[in-house]
Amino acid sequence: MQTKDMETRTIAQTAREVARATARASTAQKNAALKAMAAKLENARDRVREANDADLAGAIEAGLEPKLLDRLRFNDGKIDARIRCLHKIAELPDPVGEVLREDERPNGLRVARMRVPIGVILMIYEARPHVTVNAGAFCLKSGNAAILRGGSEAKHCNDLLGDLWKESLAEADLPVEAIQVISGSHEDIDVLLGLDEYIDLVIPRGGKGLIEAVSRRSLIPVIKHYAGVCHVYVDEGADIQDAIAIAIDSKCLMPEVCNAMETLLVHREQASELPRIVSALKGAGVTVKGCLLTRAILPDVEPASEDDWRTEYLDNILAVRVVKNVEEAIRHINAYGSHHTDAIVTADESRAQQFVDQVDSAVVLVNASTMFCDGEALGMGAEIGISTDKLHARGPMGLEELTSYKFVIRGNGHVMGGNGQ
Amino acid sequence: MQTKDMETRTIAQTAREVARATARASTAQKNAALKAMAAKLENARDRVREANDADLAGAIEAGLEPKLLDRLRFNDGKIDARIRCLHKIAELPDPVGEVLREDERPNGLRVARMRVPIGVILMIYEARPHVTVNAGAFCLKSGNAAILRGGSEAKHCNDLLGDLWKESLAEADLPVEAIQVISGSHEDIDVLLGLDEYIDLVIPRGGKGLIEAVSRRSLIPVIKHYAGVCHVYVDEGADIQDAIAIAIDSKCLMPEVCNAMETLLVHREQASELPRIVSALKGAGVTVKGCLLTRAILPDVEPASEDDWRTEYLDNILAVRVVKNVEEAIRHINAYGSHHTDAIVTADESRAQQFVDQVDSAVVLVNASTMFCDGEALGMGAEIGISTDKLHARGPMGLEELTSYKFVIRGNGHVMGGNGQ
Repeated sequence: MQTKDMETRTIAQTAREVARATARASTAQKNAALKAMAAKLENARDRVREANDADLAGAIEAGLEPKLLDRLRFNDGKIDARIRCLHKIAELPDPVGEVLREDERPNGLRVARMRVPIGVILMIYEARPHVTVNAGAFCLKSGNAAILRGGSEAKHCNDLLGDLWKESLAEADLPVEAIQVISGSHEDIDVLLGLDEYIDLVIPRGGKGLIEAVSRRSLIPVIKHYAGVCHVYVDEGADIQDAIAIAIDSKCLMPEVCNAMETLLVHREQASELPRIVSALKGAGVTVKGCLLTRAILPDVEPASEDDWRTEYLDNILAVRVVKNVEEAIRHINAYGSHHTDAIVTADESRAQQFVDQVDSAVVLVNASTMFCDGEALGMGAEIGISTDKLHARGPMGLEELTSYKFVIRGNGHVMGGNGQ
Repeated sequence: MQTKDMETRTIAQTAREVARATARASTAQKNAALKAMAAKLENARDRVREANDADLAGAIEAGLEPKLLDRLRFNDGKIDARIRCLHKIAELPDPVGEVLREDERPNGLRVARMRVPIGVILMIYEARPHVTVNAGAFCLKSGNAAILRGGSEAKHCNDLLGDLWKESLAEADLPVEAIQVISGSHEDIDVLLGLDEYIDLVIPRGGKGLIEAVSRRSLIPVIKHYAGVCHVYVDEGADIQDAIAIAIDSKCLMPEVCNAMETLLVHREQASELPRIVSALKGAGVTVKGCLLTRAILPDVEPASEDDWRTEYLDNILAVRVVKNVEEAIRHINAYGSHHTDAIVTADESRAQQFVDQVDSAVVLVNASTMFCDGEALGMGAEIGISTDKLHARGPMGLEELTSYKFVIRGNGHVMGGNGQ
């Protein structure tokens, strides 16, 4: 085995070793580390920006595309947001040790499930240094040991953030290896993904290519956070003012996020309202592409191809399609969407329920913007990501979604075969 | 692609296609299919036994080991148990559509999680034809489409059971492909494990070799059901009558199951009670192996080697070790055990809590037999297996553990950026 591989292995082994101490850390200790990190981030603000500038300079030289440069940029606004997030996570209830579904069996046995940390969590991500703060905070508060493997393009900034985590953990009397930040080559990812004896869960965050590559190669369970091809469907009889407000919010508030709307479906009885809807969207800066029926009403609209129905633009572009009824809308969403976040605007409760029951997505909304697929808005405090998987966690993932449970059974000398039954 | 591979692919694709109908099946339909299967199993009892006899004859000729022959045998007692189980699962509440954690946000948005089926579940198992009944029933009641891939040694019996499922589903007006029973070669497993676009979850049931091979090759998430190296720890000051009753129940009631005790740990202050404990165990037919300290007190006891601490005997054999204190017991269990099911017998609540908090196992018991790691005993009605994983489901898995959820968010024209916040 090569020296580099041995080092990577040691990182994983160390994480496993400290995971038990991390799991038993008190709430006060964990919160102290989170608050220390917030203070250090504030105090080291200039150094963090300098490190990030060095990364940005390197990335520009290497010809990184502008979208990735945006993600790599860790400016004052983003630093402020992370400081607020650290304080917020410190205020959230500690999920570890929470007792779920306690009940007493007819034989007097008391049965409960107790929340426990998962163990060792590996995050693999590109560019975004804010993940180094965010994911570290989530893993720590949920009692897990974290390995945060950022992209080499963010190395300077991540190394510094890793040092700040170490100092923060030490101040709270926690093992400094509870959050290990590494920036490696692609080879180290292959080594890590084979270490299922040390690592319990992998969460890749980044483009589809990264997530697919990680899923295919990993021996460790992976929770995937794929892109969103999200829809808003405007039903027959829906209030058009509401529909326009929800469409504009879903498309324009943050076009770059995974839960932004990419396709607007409109019931054919509402097709006569298309000029009003499209004009409002255009007024908000959106380029509209449309199906044949849309273009029959609005000939100026660019044609949408089959590919458009499957495209996550992450930009001020929107595909519009006229559908026959709610059934066709549901079929379109299940066939072309990414099972992420989809909304119906309707005045009819039975069709709302049909949409909720039959749209196979992590988040289904009735008369609300797709922007509400958001951990904070849903009362989870914040989120480490939005799972597009069905196993373990689906939709926004908060602290609870980073835990497992154990059964705790208490008896009084109970035996199954004898008198205890 | 070969014809056989195409056929296997078609099975998975068909499962995906019918999964949506299965997910929407009414509780009445699903229960009707379960009861029809119970009646058919009763009526076809002779044919089932004949098919099983043919499998047994082939297996004996092929030189299958006696333990596997036992698992392959599907006699009247086992058929009766399956009929009871089908009725019991029909009586359990339907998990699909259950609304979890409904709450209203300060902005008036109503947020809930709704239980939904996972989708398509693939079971891969060896020998045991009873899994063909059991797993089919669990998957169906939880709204999932099932592919049940049994070993070729059980082909005759499984083919017949698959036909009975088809008839039962048809009578309940459900797609007959909701439960597809196949008995293939090893090659078909490789094909199935690559079909992550059609299959959502794989549950392998069988020996360690099978589970490891499936986990390594699968692109689909796997929930593992590994063996149990389970412990009972007799604490200082524990009631020795209770300790003996719990040890005998944990070891002798069903030595062949994964939650049977394999190692007994005894606090050194209780070492003087070892003659009484060991004599009771021997009286129940158990062969005892012991550590040096055990043998210092009971020289007739065979020595236990380092390997014994890691061995799942699944037989009337028990390893006994004297430990210094509860900390050493916990260290032993976490180091040598399989994180499955472990019990403490104690009169001291603080040490009980320490054991519960620090033993990293799916099921932790205080003053109760390890036999209570059992879906029925824990109020889950029954179980499809006992997960040794931490992701998604841990410990006994019932109907709820075969479901996922979706977020359902209802607003009233809510938008994030404007007045709806």
